[in-house]
Amino acid sequence: MQKSVSVSEANKIWQRPQRIVLAVCIDAQNKPNAIALGWKMTTSHQPPMVAISIAPQRYSHDVIHETGEFVLSIPGEDMAEAVMFCGTRSGRNIDKFQEAGLTALPAKEVKAPLVGEALANLECKVRGELKTGDHTIFAGEIVAGHVAENLDRRLLLCTGPETGYDHILSQGAYRFGAVRNDHE
Amino acid sequence: MQKSVSVSEANKIWQRPQRIVLAVCIDAQNKPNAIALGWKMTTSHQPPMVAISIAPQRYSHDVIHETGEFVLSIPGEDMAEAVMFCGTRSGRNIDKFQEAGLTALPAKEVKAPLVGEALANLECKVRGELKTGDHTIFAGEIVAGHVAENLDRRLLLCTGPETGYDHILSQGAYRFGAVRNDHE
Repeated sequence: MQKSVSVSEANKIWQRPQRIVLAVCIDAQNKPNAIALGWKMTTSHQPPMVAISIAPQRYSHDVIHETGEFVLSIPGEDMAEAVMFCGTRSGRNIDKFQEAGLTALPAKEVKAPLVGEALANLECKVRGELKTGDHTIFAGEIVAGHVAENLDRRLLLCTGPETGYDHILSQGAYRFGAVRNDHE
Repeated sequence: MQKSVSVSEANKIWQRPQRIVLAVCIDAQNKPNAIALGWKMTTSHQPPMVAISIAPQRYSHDVIHETGEFVLSIPGEDMAEAVMFCGTRSGRNIDKFQEAGLTALPAKEVKAPLVGEALANLECKVRGELKTGDHTIFAGEIVAGHVAENLDRRLLLCTGPETGYDHILSQGAYRFGAVRNDHE
């Protein structure tokens, strides 16, 4: 019933669909940055915690390591272009919030900003780190939560091979969509 | 554009939809066990690695810690009942494979078995652990991959509030479904 295949072949079935999120941080020069992430999970009920995986060469990696904080932002379907921009550009030399047209709003418990356009924002303080191959896991306690005034937008997903999505945007290996609604 | 809410309120938007998987291990008495997990992510390209979150009180937690191995199995829509069973019962006193009607197949690189019915199986060796609140993250290197002969089944998901799913099974807080196909 099973056939042995390469890990990358098996991985194709494991990867999609997945939620795509933004991890937001702020550097020592007070420039906010947002990175698009597919590799994230919840990791504790009490206290509520999330874990994210970031490669060491990404600009956000050292900023989150040094500040010990990040905001996890949950994008809606209307944010596809901004998320693609944040996922394919480095914040080392540009202001991603400005260039992607994102609104930085003050958070309550961390210095990193909320994304005004997001469906939800989770303020996180780093409680642990783990090196894993070519990435680092940052485990963050959610210390404050925010949701959008307008929740009438679908979640942005990295879509899989199923056909029941509205296709929104593709670039390189990324394919963004949203689960189709009944009435469409 | 954002309103401050409780963490659990914001968490609702973060949690669903999500892929649901099985983590399979085998104890010192050679009894295989499978736990249903929603909290998992990829965490490295090279070597390929995944991370899973398991509560210390779960039977699988200590087995995976002691054996340093697990298999990540990706269920199709036809496995909803078995996954629900594995997610709501403990393997401490029962043989979940037998009771859930799952077929244990020999793996290549680990002692824990593959799930014969799954869409894919990823054999993993634990390379790191991190305590996170009320769970432990196990980071595993994928050392071998397998896919089903029959891939013509949709992925099983924990579904969110969107309407474009075929509903498969509900129990307690769990709601399983699959993304609806175009032609349905």
